[in-house]
Amino acid sequence: MRATVMRDSKLIVDTVPDPEPGPGEVLVKTLACGICGSDLHALTHADKLVEAAREANVPFTMDPARDVVLGHEFCAEVVDFGPETQRAMKPGTRVVSMPLVFGARGVHGVGYSNEYPGGYGELMALTEGFLLPVPNGLPTEHAALTEPMAVGVHAVGKARLEPGDAPLVVGCGPVGLAVIGALRLRGAQPIVAADFSPARRALAEKMGAHVVVDPATGSAMEALTQAAGARPAVVFECVGVPGILNQLMREAPQAARIVVVGVCMEDDRIRPMLGINKELSLQFVIAYQPNEFADTLTALAEGRILAEPVITGRVGVEGVADAFGVLATPDAHAKILVEPWRR
Amino acid sequence: MRATVMRDSKLIVDTVPDPEPGPGEVLVKTLACGICGSDLHALTHADKLVEAAREANVPFTMDPARDVVLGHEFCAEVVDFGPETQRAMKPGTRVVSMPLVFGARGVHGVGYSNEYPGGYGELMALTEGFLLPVPNGLPTEHAALTEPMAVGVHAVGKARLEPGDAPLVVGCGPVGLAVIGALRLRGAQPIVAADFSPARRALAEKMGAHVVVDPATGSAMEALTQAAGARPAVVFECVGVPGILNQLMREAPQAARIVVVGVCMEDDRIRPMLGINKELSLQFVIAYQPNEFADTLTALAEGRILAEPVITGRVGVEGVADAFGVLATPDAHAKILVEPWRR
Repeated sequence: MRATVMRDSKLIVDTVPDPEPGPGEVLVKTLACGICGSDLHALTHADKLVEAAREANVPFTMDPARDVVLGHEFCAEVVDFGPETQRAMKPGTRVVSMPLVFGARGVHGVGYSNEYPGGYGELMALTEGFLLPVPNGLPTEHAALTEPMAVGVHAVGKARLEPGDAPLVVGCGPVGLAVIGALRLRGAQPIVAADFSPARRALAEKMGAHVVVDPATGSAMEALTQAAGARPAVVFECVGVPGILNQLMREAPQAARIVVVGVCMEDDRIRPMLGINKELSLQFVIAYQPNEFADTLTALAEGRILAEPVITGRVGVEGVADAFGVLATPDAHAKILVEPWRR
Repeated sequence: MRATVMRDSKLIVDTVPDPEPGPGEVLVKTLACGICGSDLHALTHADKLVEAAREANVPFTMDPARDVVLGHEFCAEVVDFGPETQRAMKPGTRVVSMPLVFGARGVHGVGYSNEYPGGYGELMALTEGFLLPVPNGLPTEHAALTEPMAVGVHAVGKARLEPGDAPLVVGCGPVGLAVIGALRLRGAQPIVAADFSPARRALAEKMGAHVVVDPATGSAMEALTQAAGARPAVVFECVGVPGILNQLMREAPQAARIVVVGVCMEDDRIRPMLGINKELSLQFVIAYQPNEFADTLTALAEGRILAEPVITGRVGVEGVADAFGVLATPDAHAKILVEPWRR
């Protein structure tokens, strides 16, 4: 099959062997697959990603010295079945799945594995039991957003919002937009969101933010206070670069809860006294539970989470490397979808 | 009055002016006052303490360039009354108080103020409305532990323990011992506690720890798992030095909650990926609420929090400087009490 392959820390278009579905697995054709910030991290910090995952027992089992086909935010179409499968879904059925396979070859993260190519290739082998059919009427490209949107649903769930809590979303890239979508789903208001990019602030408003702030010209925390008074602050950190945690700890009001959704791959420096004197809490989060993934698909299908604003570009396998370049210094872009069959 | 004075980052015994109680204030004679780790910090990191307090709006208003009489963990005796006081307590009544005055001269931290000397001096001026009479039968030196023990009660309260949660106390200095006392008060079990010092591990057992660990010879986290299985881990960080947070993040099991009670005055380095991959939370805490302070006094009087094991030394004002030296490299010691009238 044709695929964009991560090889020697570069993205190369090549023909690679088709995946063969093992026991309990289904062969699918990739229809659309989002490019995730974690994929950008994987290209530049693969060793750190693998090391951190190993320490935490997360199944990112890839060897970066061998080929990896990235891509874990996909919508696909059933093509064929491996042995020991139920075959309840017909070929041609559109499906999404958590990017995880549990099988005879162990546990693998689809798109972070040398064994299981992800959605930057034309074909994938997925665990049959994880497949969810895409509801009629939900466009393929919106269904492909189930995975990133589930990250927002999970983060908001872990925040354990109580009535009266006032959310602030710092950073309006795909993660921040997913959090805004999930806050809107919960009926939280006002939702305050901050980003330096005017285009991303516009996307934040489309996704459901009630107030947007440009941190270059005004303080996000002050905007939160103006919009929500002295209500308890719940700050969603969706930037993921060194320094942002300490900045938020310095700016946060007394007793604020900071939910760390942004993925910072590097060591970071904090001043604990800021947390101590204000009794802050930091809740780190990652990914989602299976029920949250399924609920997110339903919410997308019912229009309760918006998908349209997030999609800002589409490329074929030849366009992935350039898309990574564009996304490394994002301004207008949020989610670029890879359509491997696009010519 | 005679007092141990912090002057030019040294502890000097000197005669200083008696405090004069202002409106709403009471003059008291200090009977006993504990030496706190924060006092050691104040002597060596006064500028950082003041800077961090200013950023967080905490009323540590002292100017370290001027004299400060430290000491905020005290039991005292009513001597005289300032203007506009109720005078419900007779002279001679033993009292404790949160180390805070609210008055005509603003808000001050007693023992961290140039205006309000703390318990390393013979006399103090305290806000009348904050005084709590010491119940009959509670020894003065135990009553003096109300303040540090309230820190443990508050930390355990902020941990929002649920049935089945498994606590681990890392560091068995005065803060760790207070947390153990508060966990015992709650009926938590098993309580696992870790410290390098055999003497401190013995104190931890006396305070209520069911299992103690020497981190030099065994992993505290493994001891927790052995004692409590896969129950949710709640780790109380009671060490407060750079590096300990990241160490606990590295060792903690999935979804552990880390309650940061130790006061680290310096910048610290963490690896956010450890928190992200395991969905850890960090809850920073400080001090206590007024009701927690009063409840702690009652629990001490009723023997539900033990005080005896914590007290490991007694000095007069002349002995404070040496006591600071001993406590800077603690082994057998936990709480040393200053008795300013001791000759």
